[in-house]
Amino acid sequence: MSARLKFPTHMKRHPIIALLTDFGSSDGYVASMKGVILSIAPHASLIDITHDLPPQDVRHAGYVVWSCYRTFPQGTIFVCVVDPGVGTKRKILCASIGGYYFLAPDNGLLKYVLSSESSFKSVDVVNKKYFAKNISTTFHGRDIFAPAAAHLANGIPMKNFGPAIRVAQSKKLFIRIDDSSKSRVNGEILHIDRFGNIITNCLAKSLPKSPKSIALRIGNRRITEQSLTYEAAGKGKLFITLGSSGLIEMSLKNGSAAKRLSAIRGQQVQFQLEHHA
Amino acid sequence: MSARLKFPTHMKRHPIIALLTDFGSSDGYVASMKGVILSIAPHASLIDITHDLPPQDVRHAGYVVWSCYRTFPQGTIFVCVVDPGVGTKRKILCASIGGYYFLAPDNGLLKYVLSSESSFKSVDVVNKKYFAKNISTTFHGRDIFAPAAAHLANGIPMKNFGPAIRVAQSKKLFIRIDDSSKSRVNGEILHIDRFGNIITNCLAKSLPKSPKSIALRIGNRRITEQSLTYEAAGKGKLFITLGSSGLIEMSLKNGSAAKRLSAIRGQQVQFQLEHHA
Amino acid sequence: MSARLKFPTHMKRHPIIALLTDFGSSDGYVASMKGVILSIAPHASLIDITHDLPPQDVRHAGYVVWSCYRTFPQGTIFVCVVDPGVGTKRKILCASIGGYYFLAPDNGLLKYVLSSESSFKSVDVVNKKYFAKNISTTFHGRDIFAPAAAHLANGIPMKNFGPAIRVAQSKKLFIRIDDSSKSRVNGEILHIDRFGNIITNCLAKSLPKSPKSIALRIGNRRITEQSLTYEAAGKGKLFITLGSSGLIEMSLKNGSAAKRLSAIRGQQVQFQLEHHA
Repeated sequence: MSARLKFPTHMKRHPIIALLTDFGSSDGYVASMKGVILSIAPHASLIDITHDLPPQDVRHAGYVVWSCYRTFPQGTIFVCVVDPGVGTKRKILCASIGGYYFLAPDNGLLKYVLSSESSFKSVDVVNKKYFAKNISTTFHGRDIFAPAAAHLANGIPMKNFGPAIRVAQSKKLFIRIDDSSKSRVNGEILHIDRFGNIITNCLAKSLPKSPKSIALRIGNRRITEQSLTYEAAGKGKLFITLGSSGLIEMSLKNGSAAKRLSAIRGQQVQFQLEHHA
Repeated sequence: MSARLKFPTHMKRHPIIALLTDFGSSDGYVASMKGVILSIAPHASLIDITHDLPPQDVRHAGYVVWSCYRTFPQGTIFVCVVDPGVGTKRKILCASIGGYYFLAPDNGLLKYVLSSESSFKSVDVVNKKYFAKNISTTFHGRDIFAPAAAHLANGIPMKNFGPAIRVAQSKKLFIRIDDSSKSRVNGEILHIDRFGNIITNCLAKSLPKSPKSIALRIGNRRITEQSLTYEAAGKGKLFITLGSSGLIEMSLKNGSAAKRLSAIRGQQVQFQLEHHA
Repeated sequence: MSARLKFPTHMKRHPIIALLTDFGSSDGYVASMKGVILSIAPHASLIDITHDLPPQDVRHAGYVVWSCYRTFPQGTIFVCVVDPGVGTKRKILCASIGGYYFLAPDNGLLKYVLSSESSFKSVDVVNKKYFAKNISTTFHGRDIFAPAAAHLANGIPMKNFGPAIRVAQSKKLFIRIDDSSKSRVNGEILHIDRFGNIITNCLAKSLPKSPKSIALRIGNRRITEQSLTYEAAGKGKLFITLGSSGLIEMSLKNGSAAKRLSAIRGQQVQFQLEHHA
């Protein structure tokens, strides 16, 4: 198994390491990871995805990294540390997926990314040669993830980190409605963003247009209005839109759809599709 | 028209792209922009101005970029995305102003910068050659602003983005009191910062010194105490100071002047100038 | 006195400047510092430690920089601006400590770093040649700290900034319990992190194991349970752990120990050590 990807030339000189944690921005935890990385791989370019995830919210982390990883150059190394099991026997994965590298605890964080790619390779990160000398029990971000990412950026093949490991790919995290012949499809709320947009797990190439129609049922509300932009939507009206990640979303112009509907992540929603043709 | 600026040598190698959005720091939106930029312009240096602006607050964004852009090296590209009209027919501007580049929606975000410079050039960003292949209706930050900024960093002249466009320069966004012969000057609150400092739209080279004096009236309060430092101010007393951007500010030592005065942005203030000479 | 450190080769090309301020992330203050630095030292790599410190909280700042500085490559320049005395006669220090550089107001911010190192050199930063042309009274971060840091990154020896200055090293900021022959040791709460972990000022190489034991008294509570990981701890139970900086901490699985105990920074705690051997 050769899991070593070919980096584009500029990546060899300035490998990108993108960081996502729940460490917040008022302590020194993220800086410690950066210090370790730059000590081992001084030419790495560090990018913060976010550190302001809700503490220990593995699903939120998984959604965020899924929503942005494909915009990055091939070879980018994503270091994802939302890790309630730190210090226990939970495994740490290094995976090459779709031309990218991911380091993450084996706790489901990568499930959205994995379900979007047809093939991937992964290893169980166990080789202490690539860890800090002294490994704390509560901060593997600094003592394992950061040094491993830096060595990867330096060109160490990921197979050196440990033995190949199989990771299950979840099915049905996303649903597709484009080709659905059903009139009702059940989905759920995958994410609520800063603006209160409700992002469902329903992928669509486009919103159904007349003579087709779509209704979105959430709680005891049924929304049928569509708008492709916030501006064009009726003031104070909830509307269905196609989000920038290809997922169907529900929004409210100049307001929070989530607040209006008291919506929470994981809540069930139902799509009602009508073909009037 | 040749709107192409001459970059300093180091900028050619590491062009700076400075980002300012209202996307917050807990989603993947900012990271998506960075991924797109680095995919097109791998040598760009990315700087975050801020992403924690109040959602859709175009004026706040405009003040912040005005307050810091002149500290950056010539040739820096500022990408400003606070864009309630995303996906509609609002225009996107690329402007070269005072040796800097700015990409922003044509919604007034750049008005403070524009009013501070005597000349500028701008184009209407319409050439899809420099956009993402698929353009969402709700995330032009990723699909238009980011790729355009990256191409600009790669040396594409801004005239390639679209036709020249005239942008009106607002007058009287700032007032100058140094040379004022009036005894009363009306101004307003331009910004309230993290510390509760109240920043007015009144530019001054220095605070008037005895035998001159200045009083600042806000609501039913009249403040005459001056201090050039927080430390030297009387404890619990409001004082007038000359802020770091050359604007007259009102502060409270170890406290929030804005909270004390229930001040809000846009509120009218009045400067009373006395020349006892 | 030659306080000039030898940079590793890669640091010469890409010196790291790490920034820590209480300027928050919604204004243009941090960006202004970065603009100034990049104008003078275009090849500097900028790293944010944090800007979301509680305003004017010098101790919090001091703890955070202490907790992470040793992870960075030798030669890194730490710029620490939590500076209630800005514009007054308080001194600004440039210190070389343990192979690193620090710029900070002389207000105690560096006390934790200083107490961890056996020797250091420091100068009083007074040479206006390395400051901005016009120096505001309220924003030395932009007008003094940033340009001085940039010149340091460009290789200017710190002795050029001003005369050597003695800085007192505080004793007993940390206590060591490993070799303590006492059965009771008084300590205090040094920091409370984002997760509500209570970090004491008590350094230990390891937690005492049977037949030894340790009890931690805080308020009227006495905690004896130990766990090296969050996961292994009993649900809803407070436990003692050895934190990643070598300090004894108190934690609560899936919750905030600080909230549970209404703990505040500076609060006294007592360690009770028993040697049953």
